[in-house]
Amino acid sequence: MSDKTNPGNFFEDFRMGQELRHATPRTVTDGDAAVYMGLYGSRFALSSAATFAQALGFERPPLDELLGFHVVFGKTVPDVSLNAIANLGYASCVFGAPIHAGDTVHTNSTVIGLRENSNKQSGVVYVRSVAVNQHGQMVLEWIRWVMVRKRDNDAPAPAGDAPKLPSAVTVDKLHVPRGLQLDSYDYVLAGSSHRFDDYEVGEKIDHVDGTTIEESEHAMATRLYQNTAKVHFNQHSESKGRFGKRLVYGGHIISIARALSFNGLANGFRIAAINGGSHVAPTFAGDTIYAWSEVLDAQPIPARGDLGALRLRTIAAKDHPCADFPYKTADGKSHPAVVLDLDYWVLMPR
Amino acid sequence: MSDKTNPGNFFEDFRMGQELRHATPRTVTDGDAAVYMGLYGSRFALSSAATFAQALGFERPPLDELLGFHVVFGKTVPDVSLNAIANLGYASCVFGAPIHAGDTVHTNSTVIGLRENSNKQSGVVYVRSVAVNQHGQMVLEWIRWVMVRKRDNDAPAPAGDAPKLPSAVTVDKLHVPRGLQLDSYDYVLAGSSHRFDDYEVGEKIDHVDGTTIEESEHAMATRLYQNTAKVHFNQHSESKGRFGKRLVYGGHIISIARALSFNGLANGFRIAAINGGSHVAPTFAGDTIYAWSEVLDAQPIPARGDLGALRLRTIAAKDHPCADFPYKTADGKSHPAVVLDLDYWVLMPR
Amino acid sequence: MSDKTNPGNFFEDFRMGQELRHATPRTVTDGDAAVYMGLYGSRFALSSAATFAQALGFERPPLDELLGFHVVFGKTVPDVSLNAIANLGYASCVFGAPIHAGDTVHTNSTVIGLRENSNKQSGVVYVRSVAVNQHGQMVLEWIRWVMVRKRDNDAPAPAGDAPKLPSAVTVDKLHVPRGLQLDSYDYVLAGSSHRFDDYEVGEKIDHVDGTTIEESEHAMATRLYQNTAKVHFNQHSESKGRFGKRLVYGGHIISIARALSFNGLANGFRIAAINGGSHVAPTFAGDTIYAWSEVLDAQPIPARGDLGALRLRTIAAKDHPCADFPYKTADGKSHPAVVLDLDYWVLMPR
Repeated sequence: MSDKTNPGNFFEDFRMGQELRHATPRTVTDGDAAVYMGLYGSRFALSSAATFAQALGFERPPLDELLGFHVVFGKTVPDVSLNAIANLGYASCVFGAPIHAGDTVHTNSTVIGLRENSNKQSGVVYVRSVAVNQHGQMVLEWIRWVMVRKRDNDAPAPAGDAPKLPSAVTVDKLHVPRGLQLDSYDYVLAGSSHRFDDYEVGEKIDHVDGTTIEESEHAMATRLYQNTAKVHFNQHSESKGRFGKRLVYGGHIISIARALSFNGLANGFRIAAINGGSHVAPTFAGDTIYAWSEVLDAQPIPARGDLGALRLRTIAAKDHPCADFPYKTADGKSHPAVVLDLDYWVLMPR
Repeated sequence: MSDKTNPGNFFEDFRMGQELRHATPRTVTDGDAAVYMGLYGSRFALSSAATFAQALGFERPPLDELLGFHVVFGKTVPDVSLNAIANLGYASCVFGAPIHAGDTVHTNSTVIGLRENSNKQSGVVYVRSVAVNQHGQMVLEWIRWVMVRKRDNDAPAPAGDAPKLPSAVTVDKLHVPRGLQLDSYDYVLAGSSHRFDDYEVGEKIDHVDGTTIEESEHAMATRLYQNTAKVHFNQHSESKGRFGKRLVYGGHIISIARALSFNGLANGFRIAAINGGSHVAPTFAGDTIYAWSEVLDAQPIPARGDLGALRLRTIAAKDHPCADFPYKTADGKSHPAVVLDLDYWVLMPR
Repeated sequence: MSDKTNPGNFFEDFRMGQELRHATPRTVTDGDAAVYMGLYGSRFALSSAATFAQALGFERPPLDELLGFHVVFGKTVPDVSLNAIANLGYASCVFGAPIHAGDTVHTNSTVIGLRENSNKQSGVVYVRSVAVNQHGQMVLEWIRWVMVRKRDNDAPAPAGDAPKLPSAVTVDKLHVPRGLQLDSYDYVLAGSSHRFDDYEVGEKIDHVDGTTIEESEHAMATRLYQNTAKVHFNQHSESKGRFGKRLVYGGHIISIARALSFNGLANGFRIAAINGGSHVAPTFAGDTIYAWSEVLDAQPIPARGDLGALRLRTIAAKDHPCADFPYKTADGKSHPAVVLDLDYWVLMPR
């Protein structure tokens, strides 16, 4: 019997302050951007056109920030969540230097919290992860927490506690891409005349369109990110599982919802932070995803008269058009059609 | 209620001579070419190999001209045809400067015709569109006409009339790529020994092969082109629609037919113009597309002894091999298997 | 009736020593690498990250060697196997210079064996093929043999005989990429601490994971390689064929098995040769592929203390997890779940 396959870490293997260097650095290219375009069809002009990016002060167009998010996020899986029972949440996700075609990203993590469950069979592991490019610049940092089973229920739990988690990234923590200038921002080419000051806190926007998920699409997306969680790929084993079918990677829904949100938020040209997200219900091939957004907050960016940040809640729903803004039912539970509840900041010209 | 989503233009919003700058410029890359290759498997050597392109005088290989066509064509949708009842036709489509990886394309349109329908509920809008690269060079120009509904049936129709449309692009209007030289054209590498002078007007070619369409393929193609027409993506709404299923983007069939036509037309290395095209019947996932071509005309290119242009009619049929050249039935109607009737010019060495 | 489509060669058209220059040279790009990543999700660090490649002495990361294999292998189809009854085997497949994004590959073949079948209706054609890059460097060479039908059963068979085929590539024939240096090989980033000296001949490794094939995935892969064999694409004709459905290209299974083998063989950073392979049973969309490997041999690379070669047998099985290492049944026949039996050499740091 070989011992060469990766067994992953179990709860008792983690230590507070432990540093994890994750495998499989990844060079992201124009090719990845094209596959991503084929999967989501995003129309935000900054990532679509080099000329638009140059007019905003970028030497080269940044790749879609969610493509980067998915690629670096997945790196933590083999060390952190291979033995996970549940992905419980993520928070304080801040986007740093834009990723350009040709950049190579690495991810490292630090264990910042450990709390055994009362049943002694598992525990919650909190990690702060940082992804950097080949120049060592931070491109993404975030906290996630995961419930991980123990290898041996009798093993003593590692010392530790749950960390204090911020409810949202504050505006002063948002990164503005270096050299960004908005004098030449072309609202016609961007696809909408609505800018920061046109949005009101509390405003709700139905993004109108819907898109149906195919098995090969979510599987191609998830492989592109080198995410290897078995539930997304293996129909043979999943046919005997809880749902009888393959589960769509939650990040796939985030990217669909972002692409749909162009219709109503076309000038929200860059996601600056994700405050938190909840994959409220599973999605499967055949589901049609619709989305709507609510403006939760609107803050000018300090020391810039030309730029603001909208805090948005974007809700994705399946097989349910969003003209009625589905969210919670009277009893406070999630509306049955809702599959994603994402809280994030986008940058928008004023 | 938010007013931030794009309502599109209605018939009474258009004016003769109106200029439309379309949103979402697009940088086309080697990545787009690779996704396109995965979707169609085209074997025309000029776009397949840098070495072949260089031997013909190109510094870098041009991207497949239909990839460019689909990308720039789709830009007019949000301004012209979001409220369309029907896409009635296109004509005078001339390919200009080749598009290379890294080029950014923009599309602008001019309203050249307006004619209200007798029912006063809609009208036909004619636009001439021009797509340019980042150097301002024309890469594609074409005319299309669309039936657009009115927002308010009582609104007065805009002044205008239907323009005169040419039945075909004349050979003197075809663009020969700058610097093209054919002395080193390698017929073995190109995959066929048959050149311009070997084809006869009236000759019919069965392209033999067939390819079956999958939902995720046509949807990926259509998203790659940033075409967002709902009928291609949303099974939830289309399940209640006319066909009960998603409709394949007509351009997807054009690209399939072109790729199939390699077997018989391998040296037709570049499409120079599209005289007109008719999407005779809808196609759906599961359909298998076959194709055949007829040589409608063969003209030498003025001032070049080495180059000719074949005017072709390529017919695509579904679930029907084309050895019997399906086209019209005895009563003049389209053969029931025919889905595409495309009239175009290709360049071919003599 | 046109004669412009490619009829392919029949058995009596071949001659011993005949040289075939194959059509459709191909420039392989970062875009192809990204589509390939979307199809297989491979995690071998050398092709995934420019930084990792540079640390090993590569100026630029090599593309996945199987992407190159599929692209150049398919070039021989229109001249050699268009009229094939069966692809009988391949051997002595040696990988030479790595292929980098932007390289253009050409394939040429020489007929090295001809043997008519006793029924006089067909014969076996043996070709040695060499693929070169734009600098004339060999990137892949291999022998394949195919049973080809005769156009005319009464035609005399061409002179010839079957060649002697080596059972395996010997270690001294393996190419080590020029400039390869392993001092800075980072086992953490590569995803495993197991190196050459940790593996034992006879060791069996279950690669654990499984992946389900979709129609659009294998069709996209096969088109990416410009392989146009009708059985992979045409459901209309295959529905009346032997299996009633499209057949998956055998090379697709090789790439799936290689990607799965990362879990247990992460430091086998490059395939250096394929000794032979057998597509034991057909695969179809819907099948879930699992894989396991056995170490057949382990040889140090001459004159290098830092590098070894593992000779592996990788077995792919469908709808059957490989913890029990399915291979042959008691009567010597293949286990019914086995679909691929691949014998090859990988390079691994010591």
